[in-house]
Amino acid sequence: MTPIITAFARSPDRGQGLARDMRVRWALEEVGQAYDVRLVSFDQMKKPTHLALQPFGQIPTYEEGDLVLFESGAIVLHVAQHHAGLLPDDTNARARAVMWMFAALDTVEPPIFERTLAMIFERDEPWYAQRLQGLEDAIRKRLGGLSARLGDGDWLDGAFSAGDLLMVTVLRRLHGSGLLEEHPSLSRYVARGEARPAFRRAFEAQRAVFAASEG
Amino acid sequence: MTPIITAFARSPDRGQGLARDMRVRWALEEVGQAYDVRLVSFDQMKKPTHLALQPFGQIPTYEEGDLVLFESGAIVLHVAQHHAGLLPDDTNARARAVMWMFAALDTVEPPIFERTLAMIFERDEPWYAQRLQGLEDAIRKRLGGLSARLGDGDWLDGAFSAGDLLMVTVLRRLHGSGLLEEHPSLSRYVARGEARPAFRRAFEAQRAVFAASEG
Repeated sequence: MTPIITAFARSPDRGQGLARDMRVRWALEEVGQAYDVRLVSFDQMKKPTHLALQPFGQIPTYEEGDLVLFESGAIVLHVAQHHAGLLPDDTNARARAVMWMFAALDTVEPPIFERTLAMIFERDEPWYAQRLQGLEDAIRKRLGGLSARLGDGDWLDGAFSAGDLLMVTVLRRLHGSGLLEEHPSLSRYVARGEARPAFRRAFEAQRAVFAASEG
Repeated sequence: MTPIITAFARSPDRGQGLARDMRVRWALEEVGQAYDVRLVSFDQMKKPTHLALQPFGQIPTYEEGDLVLFESGAIVLHVAQHHAGLLPDDTNARARAVMWMFAALDTVEPPIFERTLAMIFERDEPWYAQRLQGLEDAIRKRLGGLSARLGDGDWLDGAFSAGDLLMVTVLRRLHGSGLLEEHPSLSRYVARGEARPAFRRAFEAQRAVFAASEG
């Protein structure tokens, strides 16, 4: 049964692979599971048909027979639990890989995503410079803790896992900010993730959607 | 083997149960697993001994033999996967319960937590009223989607699950804001969670720590 995911008909990041379908595509590519994509416009995302799948009007969703999931983290975990390759077999190592999934989305991503939102919606506000500084300070604290834990390892805890997959997608949003470069080990970590063949395939697939939408 | 969790020696919320150890205490109470608590001061949280357990210098952590976990979402999931009572047996229903865990922490919590931070750190800024308004608008969108999905159900998807447990802890932070009251079904949902005996036991346990720290 080929799962179906939803993605933006027209990516707001112009094909940089920052939309959250990228995580799901990457996970499916890592485990070798083919998938179909249904593209939705911003208008369609707020309509009943899509809201029946995703009550907050977002992408991605994941349909596999009777199962409908949303939340990119939950979808990646579902894929990882039902295929080999994204979670270790050892029980404790598996729990730690899942821990890094939550750390990526709940501790590292919030200030990084807030910074993106502030750059879009608050750029002309009188508080913008101070707000950006506060967010970048918060990001630096997270990157410091992450970098200390990564040390000189290739991945966060042994072999590449779904935790690394999510963490790399979160950190990629800092490209161009200069913040990642303050920790060369984290720059190398992100580059290592982006060099994986499964990442490349997923990245090209989402970029092709954007290229097509541009005509 | 009795797991050990960490919690604030002196709760910044004065015993309201908003710190993230509350989620872990509640989950452990739901499944009937006894636990020990090690209290840490704000100073200790930034020291090497604690950072070895939690690289971002936060609470809670969870130690169970050789396993060390952080991230409240990951700890609750670990507890739910190793005991009966917090995840349904049916495979698809189980995936949806985990989806609601991610929805609570990644979609509903961010604007709610940002509002708390703004109320602490930006109250005296000239932009405070406008910033608060923006955050409350974002929260209203999330609550609207959540309320529509909850409908007149007791819980988000059938029986009470770890997804409801996390969602209730996230929504509790809105007590006193008036936002929850705009959706009576969500007020009742939170009250239903807070009325569970396991919630009450966890709440009293964390409040006793605060009461003791007050002398």
